[in-house]
Amino acid sequence: MNYSIVTFPQKKVQDWANSLRKRYDPQYCYIPPHITLKEKFELSDETFEKTVESLERVAKEVREFHVKFNKVSHFYPITNTIYLAIKDKEPLVELHDRINELFEPVKPAHQFVPHLTIGQEMSDDELHDIYGRLRMKEIELETGIDRFHLMYELENGSWSIFQSFLLAKD
Amino acid sequence: MNYSIVTFPQKKVQDWANSLRKRYDPQYCYIPPHITLKEKFELSDETFEKTVESLERVAKEVREFHVKFNKVSHFYPITNTIYLAIKDKEPLVELHDRINELFEPVKPAHQFVPHLTIGQEMSDDELHDIYGRLRMKEIELETGIDRFHLMYELENGSWSIFQSFLLAKD
Repeated sequence: MNYSIVTFPQKKVQDWANSLRKRYDPQYCYIPPHITLKEKFELSDETFEKTVESLERVAKEVREFHVKFNKVSHFYPITNTIYLAIKDKEPLVELHDRINELFEPVKPAHQFVPHLTIGQEMSDDELHDIYGRLRMKEIELETGIDRFHLMYELENGSWSIFQSFLLAKD
Repeated sequence: MNYSIVTFPQKKVQDWANSLRKRYDPQYCYIPPHITLKEKFELSDETFEKTVESLERVAKEVREFHVKFNKVSHFYPITNTIYLAIKDKEPLVELHDRINELFEPVKPAHQFVPHLTIGQEMSDDELHDIYGRLRMKEIELETGIDRFHLMYELENGSWSIFQSFLLAKD
Protein backbone atom coordinates (compact mmCIF):
# COMPACT_ATOMS: atom_id res chain seq x y z
CA MET A 1 0.00 0.00 0.00
CA ASN A 2 1.23 3.50 -0.75
CA TYR A 3 1.43 6.06 2.02
CA SER A 4 2.51 9.66 2.37
CA ILE A 5 2.89 12.02 5.29
CA VAL A 6 1.56 15.55 5.05
CA THR A 7 0.46 18.46 7.18
CA PHE A 8 -2.59 20.52 6.33
CA PRO A 9 -2.39 24.27 6.90
CA GLN A 10 -5.40 26.06 8.35
CA LYS A 11 -8.55 26.56 6.29
CA LYS A 12 -7.80 30.15 5.25
CA VAL A 13 -4.54 29.06 3.58
CA GLN A 14 -6.20 26.02 2.01
CA ASP A 15 -8.99 28.14 0.52
CA TRP A 16 -6.44 30.56 -0.91
CA ALA A 17 -4.47 27.69 -2.45
CA ASN A 18 -7.56 25.97 -3.82
CA SER A 19 -8.61 29.11 -5.69
CA LEU A 20 -5.49 28.56 -7.81
CA ARG A 21 -5.22 24.76 -7.63
CA LYS A 22 -8.68 24.51 -9.14
CA ARG A 23 -7.23 25.67 -12.43
CA TYR A 24 -3.57 24.74 -12.23
CA ASP A 25 -3.19 21.55 -10.18
CA PRO A 26 -4.32 18.17 -11.59
CA GLN A 27 -4.14 16.88 -7.98
CA TYR A 28 -6.90 19.34 -6.96
CA CYS A 29 -9.44 16.53 -6.76
CA TYR A 30 -7.20 14.03 -5.01
CA ILE A 31 -6.06 15.70 -1.79
CA PRO A 32 -6.76 19.02 -0.02
CA PRO A 33 -3.98 21.66 -0.03
CA HIS A 34 -1.10 20.34 2.05
CA ILE A 35 2.62 20.48 2.79
CA THR A 36 4.29 17.14 2.06
CA LEU A 37 6.60 15.85 4.80
CA LYS A 38 7.30 12.49 3.21
CA GLU A 39 6.61 11.69 -0.43
CA LYS A 40 4.78 8.55 -1.48
CA PHE A 41 6.34 5.41 0.00
CA GLU A 42 5.37 1.78 0.47
CA LEU A 43 4.82 -0.02 3.75
CA SER A 44 4.24 -3.73 4.20
CA ASP A 45 1.62 -4.88 6.69
CA GLU A 46 4.47 -6.17 8.87
CA THR A 47 6.27 -2.84 9.26
CA PHE A 48 3.12 -0.73 9.36
CA GLU A 49 2.32 -0.90 13.06
CA LYS A 50 5.92 -0.13 14.08
CA THR A 51 5.96 2.87 11.78
CA VAL A 52 2.77 4.25 13.32
CA GLU A 53 4.29 3.87 16.79
CA SER A 54 7.44 5.67 15.66
CA LEU A 55 5.40 8.52 14.21
CA GLU A 56 3.54 8.83 17.51
CA ARG A 57 6.88 9.14 19.30
CA VAL A 58 8.17 11.79 16.88
CA ALA A 59 4.95 13.80 17.28
CA LYS A 60 5.32 13.82 21.08
CA GLU A 61 8.92 15.04 20.77
CA VAL A 62 8.35 17.91 18.34
CA ARG A 63 6.74 21.11 19.55
CA GLU A 64 3.90 22.76 17.58
CA PHE A 65 4.91 25.88 15.62
CA HIS A 66 3.79 28.64 13.26
CA VAL A 67 4.79 29.22 9.65
CA LYS A 68 4.36 32.22 7.37
CA PHE A 69 3.89 32.07 3.64
CA ASN A 70 5.52 35.05 2.02
CA LYS A 71 5.62 34.57 -1.75
CA VAL A 72 4.88 32.42 -4.75
CA SER A 73 7.86 30.51 -6.12
CA HIS A 74 8.58 27.63 -8.55
CA PHE A 75 10.77 24.57 -9.08
CA TYR A 76 11.34 25.21 -12.78
CA PRO A 77 13.30 23.81 -14.62
CA ILE A 78 13.42 20.76 -12.29
CA THR A 79 9.65 20.40 -12.34
CA ASN A 80 6.96 22.73 -13.64
CA THR A 81 5.53 23.31 -10.20
CA ILE A 82 4.41 26.61 -8.68
CA TYR A 83 4.10 26.81 -4.93
CA LEU A 84 3.47 28.99 -1.95
CA ALA A 85 6.86 29.45 -0.32
CA ILE A 86 7.47 29.41 3.40
CA LYS A 87 9.39 32.12 5.20
CA ASP A 88 10.73 30.39 8.29
CA LYS A 89 11.55 26.94 7.05
CA GLU A 90 13.45 25.61 10.07
CA PRO A 91 10.63 24.01 12.11
CA LEU A 92 9.22 22.30 9.01
CA VAL A 93 12.66 21.07 7.96
CA GLU A 94 13.21 19.72 11.46
CA LEU A 95 9.86 17.91 11.46
CA HIS A 96 10.60 16.56 7.97
CA ASP A 97 14.03 15.31 9.07
CA ARG A 98 12.72 13.67 12.24
CA ILE A 99 10.06 11.80 10.24
CA ASN A 100 12.36 10.80 7.39
CA GLU A 101 15.08 9.54 9.74
CA LEU A 102 12.63 6.80 10.73
CA PHE A 103 12.91 5.37 7.26
CA GLU A 104 16.50 6.00 6.20
CA PRO A 105 19.31 8.34 7.17
CA VAL A 106 18.54 11.83 5.86
CA LYS A 107 21.30 12.71 3.45
CA PRO A 108 22.80 16.13 4.16
CA ALA A 109 22.99 16.64 0.39
CA HIS A 110 19.25 16.25 0.05
CA GLN A 111 17.66 19.66 0.35
CA PHE A 112 14.05 19.64 1.49
CA VAL A 113 12.19 22.77 0.43
CA PRO A 114 8.93 22.88 2.38
CA HIS A 115 6.18 24.19 0.09
CA LEU A 116 2.47 24.18 -0.63
CA THR A 117 1.85 23.33 -4.29
CA ILE A 118 -0.66 25.54 -6.10
CA GLY A 119 0.05 24.40 -9.67
CA GLN A 120 1.93 21.58 -11.37
CA GLU A 121 2.37 19.61 -14.60
CA MET A 122 1.88 22.76 -16.67
CA SER A 123 3.65 23.74 -19.87
CA ASP A 124 6.69 26.04 -19.69
CA ASP A 125 4.66 28.87 -21.23
CA GLU A 126 1.81 28.46 -18.78
CA LEU A 127 4.22 28.31 -15.84
CA HIS A 128 5.98 31.52 -16.85
CA ASP A 129 2.65 33.23 -17.47
CA ILE A 130 1.18 32.28 -14.09
CA TYR A 131 4.38 32.91 -12.18
CA GLY A 132 4.69 36.28 -13.88
CA ARG A 133 1.25 37.22 -12.64
CA LEU A 134 1.69 35.89 -9.09
CA ARG A 135 5.29 36.75 -8.27
CA MET A 136 4.54 40.37 -7.41
CA LYS A 137 1.53 39.50 -5.28
CA GLU A 138 1.89 40.46 -1.65
CA ILE A 139 1.11 37.43 0.41
CA GLU A 140 0.34 37.51 4.09
CA LEU A 141 -0.77 34.07 5.10
CA GLU A 142 0.17 32.09 8.13
CA THR A 143 -0.84 28.91 9.86
CA GLY A 144 -0.25 27.00 13.03
CA ILE A 145 1.16 23.51 12.53
CA ASP A 146 0.20 21.36 15.49
CA ARG A 147 -0.23 17.96 13.80
CA PHE A 148 0.67 15.86 10.80
CA HIS A 149 -1.18 13.09 8.99
CA LEU A 150 -0.46 9.65 7.60
CA MET A 151 -2.39 9.24 4.34
CA TYR A 152 -2.87 6.21 2.08
CA GLU A 153 -3.48 6.16 -1.65
CA LEU A 154 -6.63 4.74 -3.20
CA GLU A 155 -6.68 3.04 -6.61
CA ASN A 156 -7.95 6.20 -8.31
CA GLY A 157 -4.91 8.17 -7.09
CA SER A 158 -6.75 10.09 -4.36
CA TRP A 159 -5.60 10.11 -0.74
CA SER A 160 -7.56 9.08 2.31
CA ILE A 161 -6.54 9.73 5.91
CA PHE A 162 -5.23 6.98 8.14
CA GLN A 163 -4.28 8.86 11.28
CA SER A 164 -3.43 12.27 12.66
CA PHE A 165 -0.47 12.78 15.00
CA LEU A 166 -0.60 15.71 17.41
CA LEU A 167 2.62 17.60 18.10
CA ALA A 168 3.58 18.57 21.64
CA LYS A 169 1.82 21.69 22.94
CA ASP A 170 3.90 24.82 23.04
CA MET B 1 -16.79 26.65 10.31
CA ASN B 2 -18.59 23.54 9.09
CA TYR B 3 -17.59 20.16 10.43
CA SER B 4 -18.70 16.58 9.98
CA ILE B 5 -17.75 13.29 11.60
CA VAL B 6 -17.12 10.25 9.45
CA THR B 7 -15.38 6.92 9.49
CA PHE B 8 -13.45 5.62 6.50
CA PRO B 9 -13.71 1.90 5.69
CA GLN B 10 -10.58 0.04 4.61
CA LYS B 11 -9.05 0.64 1.20
CA LYS B 12 -10.62 -2.39 -0.51
CA VAL B 13 -14.11 -1.11 0.30
CA GLN B 14 -13.20 2.45 -0.70
CA ASP B 15 -11.84 1.30 -4.07
CA TRP B 16 -15.00 -0.70 -4.72
CA ALA B 17 -17.18 2.31 -3.85
CA ASN B 18 -15.09 4.72 -5.92
CA SER B 19 -15.50 2.60 -9.05
CA LEU B 20 -19.21 3.53 -8.86
CA ARG B 21 -18.94 6.95 -7.21
CA LYS B 22 -16.76 8.10 -10.08
CA ARG B 23 -19.82 8.06 -12.31
CA TYR B 24 -22.72 8.46 -9.91
CA ASP B 25 -21.64 10.65 -6.99
CA PRO B 26 -21.07 14.40 -7.46
CA GLN B 27 -19.21 14.30 -4.11
CA TYR B 28 -16.60 11.94 -5.61
CA CYS B 29 -14.05 14.71 -5.78
CA TYR B 30 -14.78 16.19 -2.36
CA ILE B 31 -14.23 13.37 0.12
CA PRO B 32 -13.06 9.74 -0.05
CA PRO B 33 -15.69 6.99 0.44
CA HIS B 34 -16.93 7.18 4.02
CA ILE B 35 -19.71 6.37 6.47
CA THR B 36 -21.14 9.56 7.98
CA LEU B 37 -21.54 9.52 11.76
CA LYS B 38 -22.61 13.15 12.11
CA GLU B 39 -23.85 15.25 9.22
CA LYS B 40 -22.51 18.76 8.57
CA PHE B 41 -22.72 20.97 11.67
CA GLU B 42 -21.28 24.27 12.82
CA LEU B 43 -18.92 24.81 15.72
CA SER B 44 -17.82 28.14 17.10
CA ASP B 45 -14.19 28.63 18.10
CA GLU B 46 -15.36 28.72 21.73
CA THR B 47 -17.01 25.30 21.77
CA PHE B 48 -14.51 23.65 19.44
CA GLU B 49 -11.90 22.56 21.96
CA LYS B 50 -14.49 21.12 24.34
CA THR B 51 -16.03 19.13 21.49
CA VAL B 52 -12.68 17.63 20.54
CA GLU B 53 -12.12 16.59 24.16
CA SER B 54 -15.56 14.99 24.28
CA LEU B 55 -14.88 13.08 21.07
CA GLU B 56 -11.62 11.81 22.54
CA ARG B 57 -13.55 10.54 25.56
CA VAL B 58 -16.17 8.81 23.41
CA ALA B 59 -13.46 7.11 21.32
CA LYS B 60 -11.81 5.73 24.47
CA GLU B 61 -15.13 4.31 25.66
CA VAL B 62 -16.20 2.57 22.44
CA ARG B 63 -14.54 -0.65 21.38
CA GLU B 64 -13.33 -1.20 17.79
CA PHE B 65 -15.54 -3.48 15.69
CA HIS B 66 -16.10 -5.08 12.28
CA VAL B 67 -18.89 -4.43 9.79
CA LYS B 68 -20.02 -6.35 6.73
CA PHE B 69 -21.55 -4.82 3.65
CA ASN B 70 -24.08 -7.18 2.15
CA LYS B 71 -26.08 -5.39 -0.55
CA VAL B 72 -26.79 -2.22 -2.47
CA SER B 73 -29.83 -0.28 -1.30
CA HIS B 74 -31.42 3.19 -1.79
CA PHE B 75 -33.22 5.97 0.06
CA TYR B 76 -35.70 6.67 -2.75
CA PRO B 77 -38.18 8.40 -2.64
CA ILE B 78 -36.75 10.37 0.32
CA THR B 79 -33.54 11.13 -1.56
CA ASN B 80 -32.18 9.72 -4.81
CA THR B 81 -29.24 8.09 -3.08
CA ILE B 82 -27.85 4.61 -3.68
CA TYR B 83 -25.64 3.12 -1.02
CA LEU B 84 -23.78 0.08 0.19
CA ALA B 85 -25.87 -1.28 3.06
CA ILE B 86 -24.43 -2.65 6.27
CA LYS B 87 -25.43 -6.01 7.70
CA ASP B 88 -24.75 -5.65 11.42
CA LYS B 89 -25.75 -2.09 12.12
CA GLU B 90 -25.65 -2.13 15.93
CA PRO B 91 -22.04 -1.09 16.62
CA LEU B 92 -22.25 1.77 14.08
CA VAL B 93 -25.59 2.91 15.50
CA GLU B 94 -24.10 2.87 18.99
CA LEU B 95 -21.07 4.89 17.89
CA HIS B 96 -23.38 7.31 16.06
CA ASP B 97 -25.57 7.73 19.13
CA ARG B 98 -22.65 8.25 21.49
CA ILE B 99 -21.25 10.97 19.22
CA ASN B 100 -24.55 12.68 18.57
CA GLU B 101 -25.51 12.72 22.27
CA LEU B 102 -22.64 15.16 22.75
CA PHE B 103 -24.52 17.71 20.70
CA GLU B 104 -28.18 17.14 21.54
CA PRO B 105 -30.33 14.33 22.88
CA VAL B 106 -30.71 11.65 20.20
CA LYS B 107 -34.43 11.44 19.45
CA PRO B 108 -35.69 7.84 19.53
CA ALA B 109 -37.87 8.73 16.52
CA HIS B 110 -34.78 9.57 14.47
CA GLN B 111 -33.65 6.44 12.69
CA PHE B 112 -29.99 6.42 11.71
CA VAL B 113 -29.28 4.09 8.80
CA PRO B 114 -25.50 3.63 8.57
CA HIS B 115 -24.52 3.52 4.91
CA LEU B 116 -21.76 4.18 2.42
CA THR B 117 -23.03 6.36 -0.44
CA ILE B 118 -22.09 5.22 -3.94
CA GLY B 119 -24.44 7.47 -5.93
CA GLN B 120 -26.61 10.52 -5.27
CA GLU B 121 -28.45 13.45 -6.83
CA MET B 122 -29.46 11.31 -9.81
CA SER B 123 -32.75 11.38 -11.70
CA ASP B 124 -35.47 8.87 -10.82
CA ASP B 125 -34.87 7.01 -14.07
CA GLU B 126 -31.12 6.81 -13.52
CA LEU B 127 -31.60 5.63 -9.95
CA HIS B 128 -33.97 2.83 -10.95
CA ASP B 129 -31.66 1.82 -13.77
CA ILE B 130 -28.54 1.65 -11.60
CA TYR B 131 -30.32 0.04 -8.68
CA GLY B 132 -31.82 -2.53 -11.02
CA ARG B 133 -28.36 -3.46 -12.19
CA LEU B 134 -26.76 -3.56 -8.75
CA ARG B 135 -29.47 -5.04 -6.54
CA MET B 136 -28.75 -8.62 -7.57
CA LYS B 137 -25.00 -8.24 -7.17
CA GLU B 138 -23.50 -10.47 -4.53
CA ILE B 139 -21.45 -8.34 -2.24
CA GLU B 140 -18.89 -9.64 0.18
CA LEU B 141 -17.07 -6.70 1.63
CA GLU B 142 -16.08 -6.06 5.19
CA THR B 143 -13.99 -3.62 7.14
CA GLY B 144 -12.64 -3.04 10.58
CA ILE B 145 -13.73 0.22 12.18
CA ASP B 146 -11.16 1.26 14.76
CA ARG B 147 -11.30 5.05 14.44
CA PHE B 148 -13.40 7.98 13.33
CA HIS B 149 -12.49 11.40 11.97
CA LEU B 150 -13.45 15.01 12.49
CA MET B 151 -13.48 16.76 9.11
CA TYR B 152 -13.93 20.45 8.19
CA GLU B 153 -15.35 21.90 5.00
CA LEU B 154 -13.33 24.11 2.67
CA GLU B 155 -14.88 26.91 0.61
CA ASN B 156 -15.03 24.71 -2.50
CA GLY B 157 -17.18 22.14 -0.67
CA SER B 158 -14.40 19.59 -0.22
CA TRP B 159 -13.50 18.13 3.18
CA SER B 160 -10.13 18.22 4.92
CA ILE B 161 -9.19 16.19 8.00
CA PHE B 162 -8.85 17.81 11.38
CA GLN B 163 -8.23 14.82 13.64
CA SER B 164 -8.58 11.07 13.92
CA PHE B 165 -9.94 9.47 17.10
CA LEU B 166 -8.89 5.89 17.86
CA LEU B 167 -11.45 3.55 19.39
CA ALA B 168 -10.52 1.28 22.29
CA LYS B 169 -8.65 -1.88 21.26
CA ASP B 170 -10.72 -5.05 21.29
